[in-house]
Amino acid sequence: MDILFQSITAVTMDRSAPLLTNVNLGISGRKITYMESADKPAPVAARVIDGNNKVLMPGLYNCHTHAAMTLFRGYANDRALEDWLFNYIFPAERKLTAKLTHTGTMLAIAEMIASGTIAFSDMYFFMDDVAQAADEAGVLANVSNAVIGLEKDTYDFHKDNVYSQSLNALEQFHNKKDGRIKIDASIHGVYTSYAPAWDQVMNFAAKYNLGLHIHLSETKTEHENCIKEYGMTPTQVFNRHGLFEFPTLAAHGVWVSDKDIAILGEKGVHVSHNPMSNLKLASGLAPVDKMLKSGVNVAIGTDGMAANNSHDLFEEIKMTSLLQKYALSDPTVAPAQAVLEMATIGGAKAQGRDHESGMLVVGYDADLLMIDFDNVRQTACYDPILNLAYSTTGRDVEMTLCRGKILYEKGEYKTIDIEKLLYETRQSMAIFTGDKR
Amino acid sequence: MDILFQSITAVTMDRSAPLLTNVNLGISGRKITYMESADKPAPVAARVIDGNNKVLMPGLYNCHTHAAMTLFRGYANDRALEDWLFNYIFPAERKLTAKLTHTGTMLAIAEMIASGTIAFSDMYFFMDDVAQAADEAGVLANVSNAVIGLEKDTYDFHKDNVYSQSLNALEQFHNKKDGRIKIDASIHGVYTSYAPAWDQVMNFAAKYNLGLHIHLSETKTEHENCIKEYGMTPTQVFNRHGLFEFPTLAAHGVWVSDKDIAILGEKGVHVSHNPMSNLKLASGLAPVDKMLKSGVNVAIGTDGMAANNSHDLFEEIKMTSLLQKYALSDPTVAPAQAVLEMATIGGAKAQGRDHESGMLVVGYDADLLMIDFDNVRQTACYDPILNLAYSTTGRDVEMTLCRGKILYEKGEYKTIDIEKLLYETRQSMAIFTGDKR
Repeated sequence: MDILFQSITAVTMDRSAPLLTNVNLGISGRKITYMESADKPAPVAARVIDGNNKVLMPGLYNCHTHAAMTLFRGYANDRALEDWLFNYIFPAERKLTAKLTHTGTMLAIAEMIASGTIAFSDMYFFMDDVAQAADEAGVLANVSNAVIGLEKDTYDFHKDNVYSQSLNALEQFHNKKDGRIKIDASIHGVYTSYAPAWDQVMNFAAKYNLGLHIHLSETKTEHENCIKEYGMTPTQVFNRHGLFEFPTLAAHGVWVSDKDIAILGEKGVHVSHNPMSNLKLASGLAPVDKMLKSGVNVAIGTDGMAANNSHDLFEEIKMTSLLQKYALSDPTVAPAQAVLEMATIGGAKAQGRDHESGMLVVGYDADLLMIDFDNVRQTACYDPILNLAYSTTGRDVEMTLCRGKILYEKGEYKTIDIEKLLYETRQSMAIFTGDKR
Repeated sequence: MDILFQSITAVTMDRSAPLLTNVNLGISGRKITYMESADKPAPVAARVIDGNNKVLMPGLYNCHTHAAMTLFRGYANDRALEDWLFNYIFPAERKLTAKLTHTGTMLAIAEMIASGTIAFSDMYFFMDDVAQAADEAGVLANVSNAVIGLEKDTYDFHKDNVYSQSLNALEQFHNKKDGRIKIDASIHGVYTSYAPAWDQVMNFAAKYNLGLHIHLSETKTEHENCIKEYGMTPTQVFNRHGLFEFPTLAAHGVWVSDKDIAILGEKGVHVSHNPMSNLKLASGLAPVDKMLKSGVNVAIGTDGMAANNSHDLFEEIKMTSLLQKYALSDPTVAPAQAVLEMATIGGAKAQGRDHESGMLVVGYDADLLMIDFDNVRQTACYDPILNLAYSTTGRDVEMTLCRGKILYEKGEYKTIDIEKLLYETRQSMAIFTGDKR
């Protein structure tokens, strides 16, 4: 046995035994191989970690990112959406290179693992460099580059950069190294492409057996324009077109109708809820409680850092709960256990990894966090599940493991040269500040 | 000069010069005594602190707390309001003692200073013990104990514990030690007392020249029942009764009408906005942008820890902005500078301290924070004001000073024995877990 957490509290996300106190949890290689009462004799392990006032939980899944946008954290914020996008973000993105994308993605990953996230679902440019960064850092990632095809009647996927990058990423990373990195196909959204593009992306996904990552009903404008153009909602348009026959992760779902929700549930479409981004960009508030009650698997994401501006998923977990309570005028909805499930096993489902990750059970991957409860922020604690949902932040994450490997411990990064990364990021900022500001 | 921050960035909250880069800021005794370009020769100081990749800002004001409720963090959460209050919180509060209140308050203060808060406005029981804790910890506090008088036609303040505790607190603390601790008079709310109680509290406030701390239109039920009973809103009832002739801090203001807002602005009533508590208890969302635009001074608070469950005011700052953007479908409202002002100079105004605290200017008290920007969460940074509002959390607070005294530095508490405090809190929890749960 490589690591033994001794006499620790485990919040498992396994509904048959959600909270275990005073257990010994052991890791061998990439797997959780032992979980028994600490009253039993403890097995021998290369490293034994004292679990007094510590809590173990599954690592967090961030199911909608544009990770490299961490380069644009706080870039020209507090502006109207069109002004912000067309005058600041799009011009800055045109200056992105493969190397900058790698730097920005690594910066995102560093922030994620220092706050408990071990997996992310990305949609951005230079997807092979995104995959490369995730591979180097030791996290799980489903990586995509969205197809945008603004011409209505024609689209040639083979001439799109997305195609060549996707092929490259497939060859280098997809399901290599036991599937730590996966490649998704991606359609940016119903408002940025048309049927010819959708068909070609679907053919591509079918050929390589890929999932899809899309934007769906993020803004009222997008949703209502779609109804004007097609006579039905984005969910209904995509469903009629057959997209949802593929395993699909749909980001946002802010404006989905009851009929849409029924379709998402029936088709097994996974939704990434991104509450902070949806508030900050004034997009709205997704009907999470309704989706959950209709059987939709809802995961949680941060969206890009120009629109958030933090990768701390514990913020999103807390706000997911609080915003549903507010919206439904009911403090009992979206309770602690439910929102923690969304960020763990819900995320694992959305990434197609729930057969091996997202819960603390023997045989599952050791994708887990040790949270410090021996501090003032976690005191008093009557129920660790409530504290994890409402009091914990990334600050309390003492150790982050992915597949049994320690990625972060007490402020130290094990797979990232953080000083070099911060230096390179600061150097790269000058490229963007040349823009009109 | 005692402390010199060298070549640092200062976010001053002084609108005439909100952002100063590369300055030297010096502290002598309790005051900021020097602030000049770092290009000038630096003065001599007993301690020189390197300001590279650090940002100074004024310390935060938490303008509505029930600090000792930190003992009930996460106690029986996710329940309906009545169930939670009557079956859990009220029975637990009946077991409170002076000593437990001191412990719980100190726990709150420890969490506050470790996340950048240097001042709080409290409304709870055993106010002399609350004041004692604030005095020992070295923070600023306006302390009150709310009068509740449920009989309609009669009330005798002199027979209320609040009276004796208030007199004791006045004698021991009020405006002693240069006014670090102040005592407020307090009426719990329009729904928990009647005119006879209000008259006697007002007489008391007049006799000792005190401000008032009240709850105001927190829930829709409270607001609408008041209209049924009095034919007018809580704001209008209290205004007609003359309460607002006293300097008043009103917590919540979730349901205030346009007419109420005009009254609050005209009478100079300070409002404490407590967004996380208001969401979590499903109370609603206060019209902050409208209040600000009507000239109301709106400060920020956390409310008690059974209803939040964190004292990190940076969370409230971020959510104050994001929730207004969401509610008004406009990402330009409640911008970074405005919400940071609410938590600093706005709080100082609400506590009657804006002549000496809440901004970084020479002659003001050295109530300030040094924030670490040399980490992944603060990178990239294009504008420190945007990062402070949207990316910073208490985690980034490296040093907290109140009146020139360092209270917290890099995880170390200078005025609190944190190990003893955590131990005592854990011991005390058993008293409450005896309740029906």
